[in-house]
Amino acid sequence: MGGSLRGRPGMIVHSEAPYNAEPPLGRLRAAFLTGAADFYVRSHGNIPEIDPAEYRLRVDGLVAEPLTLTVAALRARFQAQTVNAVLQCAGNRRADLQRVRPVSGDPWAPGAIGHAEWGGVGLAEVLRAAGAAEGRGLHVAFAAADEIEMEGEKRFRFGVSIPMEKAMAGEVLLAFEMNGAALAAEHGFPLRVVVPGFAGVRSPKWLMGITVQDRPSNNHMQQRDYKMLPPGMEAETVDWAKGATIEEMPLNSAICEPGEGAELAAGRVVVRGYAIASARGVVRVDVSGDGGRNWVQAALEVGASRWSWVFWEAAVELSRGEQDIIVRAWDSAGQTQPSQAADVWNTKGYLSAAWHRVRVRVV
Amino acid sequence: MGGSLRGRPGMIVHSEAPYNAEPPLGRLRAAFLTGAADFYVRSHGNIPEIDPAEYRLRVDGLVAEPLTLTVAALRARFQAQTVNAVLQCAGNRRADLQRVRPVSGDPWAPGAIGHAEWGGVGLAEVLRAAGAAEGRGLHVAFAAADEIEMEGEKRFRFGVSIPMEKAMAGEVLLAFEMNGAALAAEHGFPLRVVVPGFAGVRSPKWLMGITVQDRPSNNHMQQRDYKMLPPGMEAETVDWAKGATIEEMPLNSAICEPGEGAELAAGRVVVRGYAIASARGVVRVDVSGDGGRNWVQAALEVGASRWSWVFWEAAVELSRGEQDIIVRAWDSAGQTQPSQAADVWNTKGYLSAAWHRVRVRVV
Repeated sequence: MGGSLRGRPGMIVHSEAPYNAEPPLGRLRAAFLTGAADFYVRSHGNIPEIDPAEYRLRVDGLVAEPLTLTVAALRARFQAQTVNAVLQCAGNRRADLQRVRPVSGDPWAPGAIGHAEWGGVGLAEVLRAAGAAEGRGLHVAFAAADEIEMEGEKRFRFGVSIPMEKAMAGEVLLAFEMNGAALAAEHGFPLRVVVPGFAGVRSPKWLMGITVQDRPSNNHMQQRDYKMLPPGMEAETVDWAKGATIEEMPLNSAICEPGEGAELAAGRVVVRGYAIASARGVVRVDVSGDGGRNWVQAALEVGASRWSWVFWEAAVELSRGEQDIIVRAWDSAGQTQPSQAADVWNTKGYLSAAWHRVRVRVV
Repeated sequence: MGGSLRGRPGMIVHSEAPYNAEPPLGRLRAAFLTGAADFYVRSHGNIPEIDPAEYRLRVDGLVAEPLTLTVAALRARFQAQTVNAVLQCAGNRRADLQRVRPVSGDPWAPGAIGHAEWGGVGLAEVLRAAGAAEGRGLHVAFAAADEIEMEGEKRFRFGVSIPMEKAMAGEVLLAFEMNGAALAAEHGFPLRVVVPGFAGVRSPKWLMGITVQDRPSNNHMQQRDYKMLPPGMEAETVDWAKGATIEEMPLNSAICEPGEGAELAAGRVVVRGYAIASARGVVRVDVSGDGGRNWVQAALEVGASRWSWVFWEAAVELSRGEQDIIVRAWDSAGQTQPSQAADVWNTKGYLSAAWHRVRVRVV
């Protein structure tokens, strides 16, 4: 049974119930595969305690043969697979939007992201074994065990869906392992979904059911949350029908070292961080030590999996005074990040992907 | 034999030899499928006159069975296919970068783009018929008939390559038809490549040969042109090894109506244009009539093909005075365009994809 990670020293805890925490950025940047204890946790409700002896996954809906499976049956019946993939919260870097104008939700720094080797079985294989209907316009809905209490609404269990095309792509896993060990309770023991490239919300933990259906999930999490709303729409006028469902994540990058407010000696300083481009590759990372007037190209550490992040490192010359160190990435389609957080501001504070800036004091 | 389009009235001609021209934007926006006579022409050398009776396409390199094919043989041996797809020049909208700081190349407005129904046969099928080697690290090189003269360099024929993964994707065509008619001479008669989603340079006209090989084309066009160079690199210090080969094109959008400098009456004005996101979808287009302070969401006309552009239309309120109308698009990964042309400036003037602005006088 997965142990609990909640006591981990040094985590930045945004809330205890539900438990939401991210690692300090230096620790995040220290390992290309993020350890389970340093991996951000985003919870919407309780952290279920599931007895693996009692656990059953059901697969139903538009399938020829509904299935009920233990984790042992999943292991026995399907080929084991691993995928190195980033998961990140749609609210990663929300704090930068918060500084423009208030938004709802926890003020995540750039640590609501992690990269792990996920081990499990392919969702596509399980769907094929169930004789799932295929084709455009179909959706695969996931039901989870965590129970959510919304202000003024009744309690419900977490649920979302992904389009069938993505569900049938080889990279989507039903995962029971993270970096070679059983999932910890906070990361979804005994079984979670891992949808590489998509926002973390589409990768439910504590997975209980998979339903093939002809429409997206009607769960609150799918319909009235995790959508990009247009500019000008404020908290009191939210119209969810005008939002676009967040699935694939945008190009993003962040500086992990040095940290905000660091006091540094003038001269050459090494800057380190991560960049990520979903299914696209990161082809270039530019770093500026003078607020964007001059840029140097960072050296990139690229993983073998297209779903991995890129670690980058660059040396910049810093002059005395307050300086903004900035990073921006470019993807394989020649797209780059917008310069201003105000240009991507949205009332729910999602997809904060403008240039990342760290202000330091150079003495 | 395809006729010549060079006399078409109203085209904006950047040069006669080689012939480079784009349509006025109002005419471009008038039809979802761009007519051949309104479709931009980008030439690097002469426009070859090819006798179809003499024409042969050869397929060679890492193939089990080299082929030599007439267009009639292509038609007879392979299934006819059509793909609705945009082609655009990597230099489309270069004029906006030129206004920041000089760049080399023709000052294209946003008209170096067009959308057509291409008819031909699948490149993947032709490669399979030749028993082409497959796998990562392979490239498909295209040799064309047009001859290019470079200042201080010897004459050579146009050539480029694409990665094998893209060549085997179903959407890449060897096309002999455009909007149901034979290709015009300017568009590559009798046969051209159409690589949807990639910059136009990877879709050679007047195709003569296809070679499967273990490295990218060593043609000048592949190695020393059409690369994104980092900021700070100026014309006199160009190091092509530091550039990223331009293949997939970035998210972009442009205002076609009203035009730059138009004089308009105050009040409601309808704004129209296009947006494009390569393989991704365009999910939202924002239009501002006050320089970016307020935005409205445009109505979108979306084609059935994922390789089509999006036509958009929005009504904005304009106040008296000089006003900047602005458009920006958002793709299905929640990415948007940078606001400033300076942020994407590069010495060769490629991938100009910042917010498009049109200044009008409101009276």
